[in-house]
Amino acid sequence: MDLKALLDSIARDVLAAPARGKVADYIPALAKVDAQKFGMAFAPVDGPLVGTGDFQVPFSAQSVMKTFALALVLAKDEDSLWSRVGREPSGTAFNSLVHLEYERGIPRNPFINAGALVVIDRLIGLYGDALDAVRTLVRTESGNPDIDVDMEVARSEAEYGHRNAALAHFMSSFGNLEHPVARVLDPYFRMCALRLSCADLAMAGLFLARGGLRADGSRLLSTSGAKRMNAVLLTCGTYDAAGDFAYRVGLPGKSGVGGGILTILPGRGCLCVWGPALDKSGNSARGVDGLDEFTTRTGWSIF
Amino acid sequence: MDLKALLDSIARDVLAAPARGKVADYIPALAKVDAQKFGMAFAPVDGPLVGTGDFQVPFSAQSVMKTFALALVLAKDEDSLWSRVGREPSGTAFNSLVHLEYERGIPRNPFINAGALVVIDRLIGLYGDALDAVRTLVRTESGNPDIDVDMEVARSEAEYGHRNAALAHFMSSFGNLEHPVARVLDPYFRMCALRLSCADLAMAGLFLARGGLRADGSRLLSTSGAKRMNAVLLTCGTYDAAGDFAYRVGLPGKSGVGGGILTILPGRGCLCVWGPALDKSGNSARGVDGLDEFTTRTGWSIF
Amino acid sequence: MDLKALLDSIARDVLAAPARGKVADYIPALAKVDAQKFGMAFAPVDGPLVGTGDFQVPFSAQSVMKTFALALVLAKDEDSLWSRVGREPSGTAFNSLVHLEYERGIPRNPFINAGALVVIDRLIGLYGDALDAVRTLVRTESGNPDIDVDMEVARSEAEYGHRNAALAHFMSSFGNLEHPVARVLDPYFRMCALRLSCADLAMAGLFLARGGLRADGSRLLSTSGAKRMNAVLLTCGTYDAAGDFAYRVGLPGKSGVGGGILTILPGRGCLCVWGPALDKSGNSARGVDGLDEFTTRTGWSIF
Amino acid sequence: MDLKALLDSIARDVLAAPARGKVADYIPALAKVDAQKFGMAFAPVDGPLVGTGDFQVPFSAQSVMKTFALALVLAKDEDSLWSRVGREPSGTAFNSLVHLEYERGIPRNPFINAGALVVIDRLIGLYGDALDAVRTLVRTESGNPDIDVDMEVARSEAEYGHRNAALAHFMSSFGNLEHPVARVLDPYFRMCALRLSCADLAMAGLFLARGGLRADGSRLLSTSGAKRMNAVLLTCGTYDAAGDFAYRVGLPGKSGVGGGILTILPGRGCLCVWGPALDKSGNSARGVDGLDEFTTRTGWSIF
Repeated sequence: MDLKALLDSIARDVLAAPARGKVADYIPALAKVDAQKFGMAFAPVDGPLVGTGDFQVPFSAQSVMKTFALALVLAKDEDSLWSRVGREPSGTAFNSLVHLEYERGIPRNPFINAGALVVIDRLIGLYGDALDAVRTLVRTESGNPDIDVDMEVARSEAEYGHRNAALAHFMSSFGNLEHPVARVLDPYFRMCALRLSCADLAMAGLFLARGGLRADGSRLLSTSGAKRMNAVLLTCGTYDAAGDFAYRVGLPGKSGVGGGILTILPGRGCLCVWGPALDKSGNSARGVDGLDEFTTRTGWSIF
Repeated sequence: MDLKALLDSIARDVLAAPARGKVADYIPALAKVDAQKFGMAFAPVDGPLVGTGDFQVPFSAQSVMKTFALALVLAKDEDSLWSRVGREPSGTAFNSLVHLEYERGIPRNPFINAGALVVIDRLIGLYGDALDAVRTLVRTESGNPDIDVDMEVARSEAEYGHRNAALAHFMSSFGNLEHPVARVLDPYFRMCALRLSCADLAMAGLFLARGGLRADGSRLLSTSGAKRMNAVLLTCGTYDAAGDFAYRVGLPGKSGVGGGILTILPGRGCLCVWGPALDKSGNSARGVDGLDEFTTRTGWSIF
Repeated sequence: MDLKALLDSIARDVLAAPARGKVADYIPALAKVDAQKFGMAFAPVDGPLVGTGDFQVPFSAQSVMKTFALALVLAKDEDSLWSRVGREPSGTAFNSLVHLEYERGIPRNPFINAGALVVIDRLIGLYGDALDAVRTLVRTESGNPDIDVDMEVARSEAEYGHRNAALAHFMSSFGNLEHPVARVLDPYFRMCALRLSCADLAMAGLFLARGGLRADGSRLLSTSGAKRMNAVLLTCGTYDAAGDFAYRVGLPGKSGVGGGILTILPGRGCLCVWGPALDKSGNSARGVDGLDEFTTRTGWSIF
Repeated sequence: MDLKALLDSIARDVLAAPARGKVADYIPALAKVDAQKFGMAFAPVDGPLVGTGDFQVPFSAQSVMKTFALALVLAKDEDSLWSRVGREPSGTAFNSLVHLEYERGIPRNPFINAGALVVIDRLIGLYGDALDAVRTLVRTESGNPDIDVDMEVARSEAEYGHRNAALAHFMSSFGNLEHPVARVLDPYFRMCALRLSCADLAMAGLFLARGGLRADGSRLLSTSGAKRMNAVLLTCGTYDAAGDFAYRVGLPGKSGVGGGILTILPGRGCLCVWGPALDKSGNSARGVDGLDEFTTRTGWSIF
């Protein structure tokens, strides 16, 4: 299969279709991104990366980074995290406090904001500098030492971060954060403000397609650990549209409000897409369309 | 009617009944209060105050103070507050975030914690020093210049105040606080830590029984404004037991987790009770029993 | 005070104000009522009834009848009902299933639809023919033997009654109905379809203003029982607007989607209003306006 | 791989571990099943079925049958169903009415009870006799003409079926059922009461592992349709434990309170397990353990 030609064809189709969705505007720094950008990159487990469109343009990774934070925690301590965070789909809007209250401060899963804050809290305990741990991992795996925090976005997130502060304080009231709220929020906002391209992300996520092996052949996660992470991505990685995403795309994936989506094809490769306009669930509208076409044309869904 | 004899008799009956409930223990400073304390004071609109038991012993007023904060806001600006806070019973636990989310940052009523934070936020706008405004009002009306903040309790509230911080940040995320979170929480914690006796509170609340007139004859609230505050007390003043409290006691009232309950008998007087052990709704168990007996024996409920 | 002149003046003011609200249209038989109708009647405890406008025109009493069903149950057995139904305000839409689920089949209060079905279920146990018990009570107290069921409305309610059937089956699944679902629904739909005028209702409800005494001087409820019913009316009688109704009107009351509202002035009389157009909470829009004016002008609220 | 030896070894391990869970007891007919039964059967796409333990003993299939009902609807009309039922994980207890209310009568997915009732309603529209359509499909695919309804269980389900009746009436109140409630409930209860063995179910579900092809080579679902059904099974097939099931087992699957679980290994085969004792989510406790071991030892999860 000529993957480069396939990606180009998909990009043409996606861009030809009427634009859908809306660029995230809850912080000014994100609102000004060009909604017409579109990129897609596929990193095979056994060959060179291919891409189309804006696949080398860095964008705000946002929640996609939660994947790497979780992997780093599970790499050192798979067991203890799951007493502090569940692994069930949220079933409601992605930053809802409702479930958190019913479940006494235990977030539904590690990818809703509350859950990611618990992951960061644990990451601090395991690595000290949580931001640096995540940044180093994506730099090393992608081979791009220039990946860094967009400080304007980070500051903006912090300024408009009342909801995340509420989540953190709420979990603290239930005793589910080990570190002070400010200490947890700061690396969280910075991590979400990391800028990477589709190419960077596809390379960085490849360890999940390789059964847990890093680019240098060393092991980050056990084979079983990598499978389990993929299961969590599938059931919890795309806000409250996990069922629909599995139905249409059929791949484990993690989306972010910057418009990026990272998906895993176990044993085959890592596919990343970027389109800033979001559907009502907060996933890239054109991104989902592109991924849908990719798995439909290749037949490479996990189902 | 010999009210002093009546109060003594009620106190005997209440103390003779098996103890129920549990002293609030969410902060150490409250947990050490003697559960056996019991006091009751009645301030008639037209005669001297009578009391029984520990009616002159100061205790932590806690949420009872929300009554005075609300009165001060309504005294200067009755209208604008109600676009920022509702006046419906909560129907769930008193500091629940669930309703707050469904109602987009608008608390159900001014007596749940979230609503009281909005009241404090408005109080800052109207009076500058919110704590001082409330403290001055209760000192003046009660005639007791020694009423002040218990700093140990205030510090303890702040230290364990993650849930209130969560509420404040959550409302800020919906744009429903004008001042920074810390600026609002600080006077809130201090106000709740004011120490007053049943005698102090019964005198301080008398303006609500006098149709809005203060002790010196000046007007704090309009006649209609006082009636409206009593309506809010009746439907929202006793956490999620407002229906049961109206059924048993039949008076507008505001309770606090320090074990105090302030009730209003419009045109007759102000009745205050204190018993530190709380029932499962957070209202003083013996306090409600005492009030129930009082209205049963006098027939002085509003119904 | 010239009450007739007062009612006439209020009616003029209410009718002069721009129309608000919308006639209930969930069943065709209700939807065809003229939205411009308006009537008001006051039955003093010690004098002849006065009325204004359409106060002698019968309308569909709907949920107002729940008042009489509850009174008949409490008259014979005050205690056992409260283990099967609560007495707290609903805090959400009046026929919500949400609370019912969280509270394991125990309705929040006897005036939401689920609670009224439990009341009817108990009424069947106590009186056999539940509809006849209610109809006989209102006929006798109002002195109007012609009060009867509007069979078109009753059939229509039954036909569109899926939601009430759902409530009944749901409670049956928790074991909170003694009789088969159909046996309970039938008198419920008929009772709600009783047609009465403001004059009829004001006379029929007078026992609640007279401390439980019926028109013939016999006792239906104890003094304390009547006060307690008034407390339940105040906190639970006007759907999820009980707080607002207490704030504006300041009287115990029960509304129905036919546009009627029955209110109690303990010791003074019974005031009934009718205006078919409903506000968003399901209470008569002009009815609430009229009651608000009445208590404002007379100063006769319970607060 | 010697699959027969593998299944035997898994059965030994599972039976050697301490018993967990509790047999469903909401109807007497299910409560009397022997909790110690355990069977497991694997039907490869290209070879003879293998089994262990009680794999040939028929049990009450219950919700497992929802898989076949859904397949029959999607076979004839893939599009229209999804406007009447979602495909997102429920996130709460499997027969909750809460979500149904928030979503205005649209069930979260076709496998919660409410969603399955919509599927049956559509099945009646497409096939007339809904029960017969499902029964014929499983008889034909399994090659077992003796599969039939356990009438004692069906009657028992109907007798204790208030909750399902509530769901059906509730959806009717939103206009989301085309047929009368009783007409939909009857085949639903009968379908759930079908008795099949692990062997029967593994053969009957094989079309989902064969990309939609039936045993006779004819097509029931398109390749893409079969993948999509597997996606729905993965995200919604195991009550509110879908995330945990994906994490541990990593296969699309559908469980029933009779203790059966049907799982799909796309391209490989169909694996069915039976153990009557259920965990707190309603899934077979030993069944999940057995499936977990199977995918761990074979590495055949979809991730």
